[in-house]
Amino acid sequence: MPPLDYRSAGVDYGPLDQFKRACQLAAAGTASNLVRHGLTEAPGTRGESAYVMEAPDACYAHVEEALGTKILVADEMYRRTGRSFYQEVALDDVATIANDLCSVGALPTSIAMYVAVGDNDYLADAVRARDLARGFAEGCRLCGATWGGGETQTLKGMVAPGTAVLGGSAWGRIAPKSNWIRGAVREGDAIVFLASSGVQTNGLTLCRALAEKLPQGYLTPVPGAAEGTTYGEALLAPSVIYVRFIAACQQAGIPLHYTAHLTGHGWRKLMRLEEPFVYRVDFVPLPPPVFDLITRTAGLSVRDAYATFNMGVGFAVFVAPQDESHCLEVAQVNGYIAWHGGTVWRDGTRKAVIVPSLGLLYEADSLKIR
Amino acid sequence: MPPLDYRSAGVDYGPLDQFKRACQLAAAGTASNLVRHGLTEAPGTRGESAYVMEAPDACYAHVEEALGTKILVADEMYRRTGRSFYQEVALDDVATIANDLCSVGALPTSIAMYVAVGDNDYLADAVRARDLARGFAEGCRLCGATWGGGETQTLKGMVAPGTAVLGGSAWGRIAPKSNWIRGAVREGDAIVFLASSGVQTNGLTLCRALAEKLPQGYLTPVPGAAEGTTYGEALLAPSVIYVRFIAACQQAGIPLHYTAHLTGHGWRKLMRLEEPFVYRVDFVPLPPPVFDLITRTAGLSVRDAYATFNMGVGFAVFVAPQDESHCLEVAQVNGYIAWHGGTVWRDGTRKAVIVPSLGLLYEADSLKIR
Repeated sequence: MPPLDYRSAGVDYGPLDQFKRACQLAAAGTASNLVRHGLTEAPGTRGESAYVMEAPDACYAHVEEALGTKILVADEMYRRTGRSFYQEVALDDVATIANDLCSVGALPTSIAMYVAVGDNDYLADAVRARDLARGFAEGCRLCGATWGGGETQTLKGMVAPGTAVLGGSAWGRIAPKSNWIRGAVREGDAIVFLASSGVQTNGLTLCRALAEKLPQGYLTPVPGAAEGTTYGEALLAPSVIYVRFIAACQQAGIPLHYTAHLTGHGWRKLMRLEEPFVYRVDFVPLPPPVFDLITRTAGLSVRDAYATFNMGVGFAVFVAPQDESHCLEVAQVNGYIAWHGGTVWRDGTRKAVIVPSLGLLYEADSLKIR
Repeated sequence: MPPLDYRSAGVDYGPLDQFKRACQLAAAGTASNLVRHGLTEAPGTRGESAYVMEAPDACYAHVEEALGTKILVADEMYRRTGRSFYQEVALDDVATIANDLCSVGALPTSIAMYVAVGDNDYLADAVRARDLARGFAEGCRLCGATWGGGETQTLKGMVAPGTAVLGGSAWGRIAPKSNWIRGAVREGDAIVFLASSGVQTNGLTLCRALAEKLPQGYLTPVPGAAEGTTYGEALLAPSVIYVRFIAACQQAGIPLHYTAHLTGHGWRKLMRLEEPFVYRVDFVPLPPPVFDLITRTAGLSVRDAYATFNMGVGFAVFVAPQDESHCLEVAQVNGYIAWHGGTVWRDGTRKAVIVPSLGLLYEADSLKIR
């Protein structure tokens, strides 16, 4: 059996990345419109996790994001067990939006949701409707944001019946401007890892394909997980929202030189900054048990696993070495699991992520996101 | 043959509106989070076209919107004729977002796009990819906004192959706060109508169903339209973006008491303000020719036609009677077609839209959007 990688599971980043770059090019030509609003585009903001605009006294950030195919797991679990995980996936949707926004130092002020169904019966289910609404609200609460409305649509013939496309957007302010996280990484900076709860919102296409290979599908027990935890449940563990951690670092006066929200492209995202650095990971946390089941079932190499999934690290921040212990403490006090992850090195114009203990090396050309 | 109304074409607003109300209820509980951002929720903003937050010196607005099924018409036209209307539908997507935002007096600062496909091949088509990017950029330019990024996703098994879900969001500032349009309608106010270009972004599910009843489908000529204009082309006339009109009224110092972006629910949207008024329409502009073809083919009553479609009026504003001629002039100078539409009356607690020349009466209970 050939290993099941991300491309053979139906996701090919090639043409998508091409379209994204075409959009970024066209979008760049519109930045001059900000002048009439008393703003300018933040240098280098295109290609970052959220779009940043600069005013004399503050910055503003805006992001559009979406959940992806994770809801299909909740749909299947609901059909098979009657147990609703819709609160969890709605929270995931908020998480994917808010985590991108806070990556640039913006605290989400208002979050708006998008829901598209192919068939209104989907939202006529009272439990599902209630739990989606609860999850959106709970997510906003965990972000300290207001849930500022949104849009619900029926797209018959466009969205498959029995599921929903979940997305949304957020905007937030960065004030004072010194809270703006804009890629001021320096050689010697410490890499601080924040734990994920599992796959979070990334790699779900592959995870779903794997369910078909498991003896009991989503109801297959996860070895090493808490007694009775099924594959479906483990996948649906709600994502960690990192907003409170970012806010706490700002309050504690810890300058965050840069952040990486580890979603698509797994640990390769550690080198998302344009400036060339070598990121050496010295500590590899034990991944949540679900990752062992995923990589074994998919026949993924360690290299492909870490290039695709967060493998237990949902978010990384880069801080001056003298701030690292304070940063770890702030994380812990605020209920986050955090570790020293590694160190940033300079090696001419080389850009890479290296993980010596796993024998991994990802060069710059393995990550094309700009 | 029974008349083809919106419900029988597959869109039933009932359960959707129920879910929307559940969301609004859950969302209302999150408004207190605005305090930590130095903001408060604008009274009455929930249920309005865009969500408004109030600061001491300005207001901010945020909206999430999406295009709906109109892109399916472009997909079919592209397959049948090789002619791309993707620039038009991308512009429509921006229009639906920006027109909602400017309804509350906010000028869009940043607009972010959402694109979801079921199959990457869709975006691998170079003409389609180019035209979508161009349309988004052109829409943002017409709004005076920056295109602040967005999200492109592959949702295999969720989105049908051969099409894309288009959505997005905008945020903007309202400054000075006197530009805030918050429902200060008074008895005697004039209703100013702004022309639409056709169906714009609303009622497309029904329009698509009708194509199957027409002898040549989307290639059926539209009687009364410019020589050779087909049904598909007429449907795909790009939406009018009303942002420049709103901005020009603000610059001219014309207080806009309220606005109505006529999308879903057609002319019933004229009574979207919570406060009870009777809206008497004295002038009914001649609808663009495509509406005649639509209503005849669907066997729609005049009542259903005006309750579903914009029928040539894409946007309405409510102004003091002494400001009406100035408002009409500002519209004209800025390239908009505008008409005196009617007058606002007070009749106790009655809320209704009446159109005497068409014998139409829509009571409050025909519009449940809050």
